[in-house]
Amino acid sequence: MSATRRQLAEAREARAAYRGGLVRPTSGVAHGLVQANLISVPADWAYDVLLYAQRNPQPCPVLEVLDAGATEPAMAPGADLRTDLPAYRVWRDGELAEETGDASSAWEEHPDLVSFLIGCSFSFEAGLVEAGIPIRHQELERNVPMYRTCRPCAPAGRISGELVVSMRPIPAHRVADAVQISGRYPALHGAPVHVGDPEGLGITDIGTPDFGDAPEIGEGEIPVFWACGVTPQAAIMASRPPFALTHAPGYMFVTDAPDSRYRV
Amino acid sequence: MSATRRQLAEAREARAAYRGGLVRPTSGVAHGLVQANLISVPADWAYDVLLYAQRNPQPCPVLEVLDAGATEPAMAPGADLRTDLPAYRVWRDGELAEETGDASSAWEEHPDLVSFLIGCSFSFEAGLVEAGIPIRHQELERNVPMYRTCRPCAPAGRISGELVVSMRPIPAHRVADAVQISGRYPALHGAPVHVGDPEGLGITDIGTPDFGDAPEIGEGEIPVFWACGVTPQAAIMASRPPFALTHAPGYMFVTDAPDSRYRV
Repeated sequence: MSATRRQLAEAREARAAYRGGLVRPTSGVAHGLVQANLISVPADWAYDVLLYAQRNPQPCPVLEVLDAGATEPAMAPGADLRTDLPAYRVWRDGELAEETGDASSAWEEHPDLVSFLIGCSFSFEAGLVEAGIPIRHQELERNVPMYRTCRPCAPAGRISGELVVSMRPIPAHRVADAVQISGRYPALHGAPVHVGDPEGLGITDIGTPDFGDAPEIGEGEIPVFWACGVTPQAAIMASRPPFALTHAPGYMFVTDAPDSRYRV
Repeated sequence: MSATRRQLAEAREARAAYRGGLVRPTSGVAHGLVQANLISVPADWAYDVLLYAQRNPQPCPVLEVLDAGATEPAMAPGADLRTDLPAYRVWRDGELAEETGDASSAWEEHPDLVSFLIGCSFSFEAGLVEAGIPIRHQELERNVPMYRTCRPCAPAGRISGELVVSMRPIPAHRVADAVQISGRYPALHGAPVHVGDPEGLGITDIGTPDFGDAPEIGEGEIPVFWACGVTPQAAIMASRPPFALTHAPGYMFVTDAPDSRYRV
């Protein structure tokens, strides 16, 4: 259940590179270590966010909650949430105000920010790759395609919004394997929420995702949809808290925790 | 994943009987349905409790959080948390102030109570029984023995405390089965935290539990310890919030949700 020295070195190097200004999607980085979605809100909003996550554990599996103002996660000792992600989004009144590679000013503006690290589907991608299931967006060196759906999440206090999903095209004869492998990580989105039939999720144009890059779906491949940790960003858009900071979709926080810690 | 009509009728009858004044431990009641630990605190304390649960998911797996003042859980439509448990405990400044069969006055005193339903090991007992593993306290018609340990939980805000465990004596040749069966319910305490060696948990007298009834450990049986949903009560004792309401240990809230919903 411990990360190897090589993995930890790779995670630290990646965080240092992002701190130094590198901006690149993190899919495939530090293979075998957990990557996390970030959402930080002023302390006054923390209960609503934590309750929203508790009521919607498949899209919002909480891995760690930092205390107000804290920036060094237990999942990555020595790291700094203000600088160690490749790209951040700053939200004001539910509108995307800025994308930046350094979020230090967010903590200066709101010294009481409470940060949530939320599980990411990149973790089970490692298991899929090990099982010989191709991950198309990794092959294309693109960001995973993500879609807002018509499926509402359970509201909590002032927060509501719809489910966001990530999509991977899977050869029909490997769909069952992909379901079973991802299902072993219930704390990291788990099994798909939907297999095929994009319209059933309210997705009318599979070629135009709401976040990430356009997909390529090959002959005989089925679009498979997993609950996505960008769901809190859709909730920000719908619920309009005065301020929030998140990662940019696909540009995750690379932790020191091994995926195996969350495998059942 | 749905409960049978017979199970639901049994759960409703049990809740009605408790509402009518019956006081009896709930182990074995409505076989196959989830039973829950209850902790209700004034809204001002809700974030601390939810965060404590998030940081200690094995002893405190949150199944449902009701909104402030709400008393009808989604897990048991038509039920009333104020009356439908067989026995409650009222806590003032961390001291046990009262045990009662009707908690209505708690909501009158604190109309903003936020209630947490927390998973219970009785759920996996059903799986153990099905596998032919005897549950001693059920055989003896006693309450399960529970112990405060020397193992601290991760603190959260104003809340801290030590892990509480439940204990079942298991024949040595069935311990592995008991581990694997309970491990299939990670949201209901999951696999044991400790097998044998009570001293390693700081338990000096296994015959005298801190909650529940004294155990009988037979020849060739190993004491097996699971994280216990009474852990929040130990946190109340240690952290002394001005007011809290809980179930009495072993006298759980019987829900309409099938155990199978939480099996992985």
